[in-house]
Amino acid sequence: MDSQTPLFQFSQRALQLTSSAIREILKVTTRPEVISFAGGLPSPEGFPVTQLQQAFDQVLTTRGRSALQYGPTEGYQPLREWVAEYVSRPGSEVSAEEVLIVSGSQQALDMLGKLFIDPGSKVLVESPTYLGALQSFSQFEPQYVAVQTDEHGLIPAEVSQPKAQGARFIYVLPNFHNPTGLTLDLQRRQDLVERCAQANIPIIEDDPYGELRYAGEAQPSLLTLGRQVGAQVVHLGSFSKVLAPGLRLGYIVGPREVINKLVQIKQATDLHSNTLTQMAVYEAIKEGFLKEHLPSVRDLYQQQCQYMLDAMQEHFPEEVVWTRPEGGMFIWVTLPEGLDSEELLLKAIDEHVAFVPGTPFYADDDTKPNTLRLSFVTVSEERIREGIAILGRLIREQIEQKAKLSA
Amino acid sequence: MDSQTPLFQFSQRALQLTSSAIREILKVTTRPEVISFAGGLPSPEGFPVTQLQQAFDQVLTTRGRSALQYGPTEGYQPLREWVAEYVSRPGSEVSAEEVLIVSGSQQALDMLGKLFIDPGSKVLVESPTYLGALQSFSQFEPQYVAVQTDEHGLIPAEVSQPKAQGARFIYVLPNFHNPTGLTLDLQRRQDLVERCAQANIPIIEDDPYGELRYAGEAQPSLLTLGRQVGAQVVHLGSFSKVLAPGLRLGYIVGPREVINKLVQIKQATDLHSNTLTQMAVYEAIKEGFLKEHLPSVRDLYQQQCQYMLDAMQEHFPEEVVWTRPEGGMFIWVTLPEGLDSEELLLKAIDEHVAFVPGTPFYADDDTKPNTLRLSFVTVSEERIREGIAILGRLIREQIEQKAKLSA
Repeated sequence: MDSQTPLFQFSQRALQLTSSAIREILKVTTRPEVISFAGGLPSPEGFPVTQLQQAFDQVLTTRGRSALQYGPTEGYQPLREWVAEYVSRPGSEVSAEEVLIVSGSQQALDMLGKLFIDPGSKVLVESPTYLGALQSFSQFEPQYVAVQTDEHGLIPAEVSQPKAQGARFIYVLPNFHNPTGLTLDLQRRQDLVERCAQANIPIIEDDPYGELRYAGEAQPSLLTLGRQVGAQVVHLGSFSKVLAPGLRLGYIVGPREVINKLVQIKQATDLHSNTLTQMAVYEAIKEGFLKEHLPSVRDLYQQQCQYMLDAMQEHFPEEVVWTRPEGGMFIWVTLPEGLDSEELLLKAIDEHVAFVPGTPFYADDDTKPNTLRLSFVTVSEERIREGIAILGRLIREQIEQKAKLSA
Repeated sequence: MDSQTPLFQFSQRALQLTSSAIREILKVTTRPEVISFAGGLPSPEGFPVTQLQQAFDQVLTTRGRSALQYGPTEGYQPLREWVAEYVSRPGSEVSAEEVLIVSGSQQALDMLGKLFIDPGSKVLVESPTYLGALQSFSQFEPQYVAVQTDEHGLIPAEVSQPKAQGARFIYVLPNFHNPTGLTLDLQRRQDLVERCAQANIPIIEDDPYGELRYAGEAQPSLLTLGRQVGAQVVHLGSFSKVLAPGLRLGYIVGPREVINKLVQIKQATDLHSNTLTQMAVYEAIKEGFLKEHLPSVRDLYQQQCQYMLDAMQEHFPEEVVWTRPEGGMFIWVTLPEGLDSEELLLKAIDEHVAFVPGTPFYADDDTKPNTLRLSFVTVSEERIREGIAILGRLIREQIEQKAKLSA
């Protein structure tokens, strides 16, 4: 074989995939000595192990053969019905035919990219937005249009601007946003669905954390509000944060026209999601288990969040600004202008503390290098205090250094 | 909203997806009165329900929290190691780093399409080939080049022809081919890997049925043979037919360069496969369970195959030709020239018998409308005889009708 000939000719999309420098750096966070605020992992203390064990056992004992056989691409029908009821609200009822079961929300993002994006298609994303969504969508080479946000989250008026016109969809995380931790209030939600209905821009509402609210008032979903004003909303939900992520189970709720196409795509993508897991999850939750289970998960997350907020209050310089989430897993930190969170990360890693710098959460070049994301969920109180104290000191040093340079 | 405006702008790839007429017809096959030879379902009698139940229970009891947590994209490391050992042969050792765990072989096909295919990329497929692979690859808009086959399967010389040059890969099912049931002999295998090494065409070897051999001699995989001559082989395996398909678990074995890119793709596609299922499958098979389990599955399939071959011998007109598989699930039938299996299907459905016509298994227009696929796996002996007798009579009627027309 000619040694000059490349062995493989990969697709353009595959060649564009690069292992990010940040991901390489963050690989060290799996070492036990590292205090990692970088993860997006839910707390295993919240996993209902016994309940799930009983559910798997029950399904395999009573319906083992059908649980192990191929199943319909649309998903296990009783689970579709459960989801339909779960997301239905008076005046905005959802039927099981509007539900597709998927192998986690990430798969939903991949399939929606396949469904909506041609190379160069305009796609609206919040600035910043969920890094994993950018990874999924980017496979299909869209042209991103960044929708600006402020301290209350997405600014709805942005979708009425000329630059938003003709977008294939807008991708929105209304509850306890990843990475910012912010939640859209009712007025912005209503404004957003009305403007999207007007501009004929479908909304992809990603809501993995919605049930993890531990402060403030629950807000109606964009799905519910959208149906009242004729906006097209595709709603993504997940069992990862209310049960356990290792099950890889989520769902898409949307107009039949969308669900029918997604069923064809899912057929070509992986035939269907794990039958046994779908049946066991349905078995576990069908009698209202989530209502019993979720309060303890919320308490756990609230407590963890409070540990971190208290430590930040104590140790962070007053020039630093951060969000105070009403739920979910993340706090978003803005350092003073001119500071760089990637530089901070390199120093922090030396002292065995990790977080995710803000830059990869931005779709365009208009990034804020002085931002970073902290997750408080899986770290003990003591180590949260320890890690935040170190970060506080390092930030202070950076501020002083910068002051010296400009003096 | 302007009623003339379409609600959604789908991607070109999504618009190309159409629900096939045949799939619509075959929906009736789920009715209990229909004798269906159309399915590709393995026999639930072969599912090791008790073994899997114990494995799930064991994993959830002893390592519940880690089994329910997010896991590495590459897959559960002990399972990767198991697969590496399972496919290794003397002189052709595979390491765990060359293994990626996926959510069933269909996902492997989707991800390989993403990895290798740009719009218009040349892709070699056997004529006929697995319908589900065509569905996966077609999402990425390749230009198919059909590789001719004869009664012994794929003709290796085809890959040396000018029309094959520059192909991104060739997709091959060497064992108990779907749909033809044919197996490549050693000479053709060797010829194929040598020619592919020469022409620098990577081979995707899809081997879901390899362990279901109930006659003849086992042949070395293209993976093993390829490594001896410097051919690049990506080997796909599945637990669907050796354990159970509802688990949606399979694997890709390939050069590190390919696996590393596929890991990036899988990260963007669904993060990773179900952690619990991976751990439970490893728990079930780690002590050599497949060696105990597979003989009974092979016996079952052989018996079913024999029922069908006997019935065909008895009831089919002598002008009809069919394959005699050494394993797997399918028999491929060639009717006399000029007969049309889609017409036959419509008549058969009226009498509550179903099969899959040959046409959708061809990538190009050079289809053989007088072919069809029969699956013998999930139908009882009595109903196999009954269904085959009906098909025999209908074929005879078609032959007579045609003779009358040309007289």
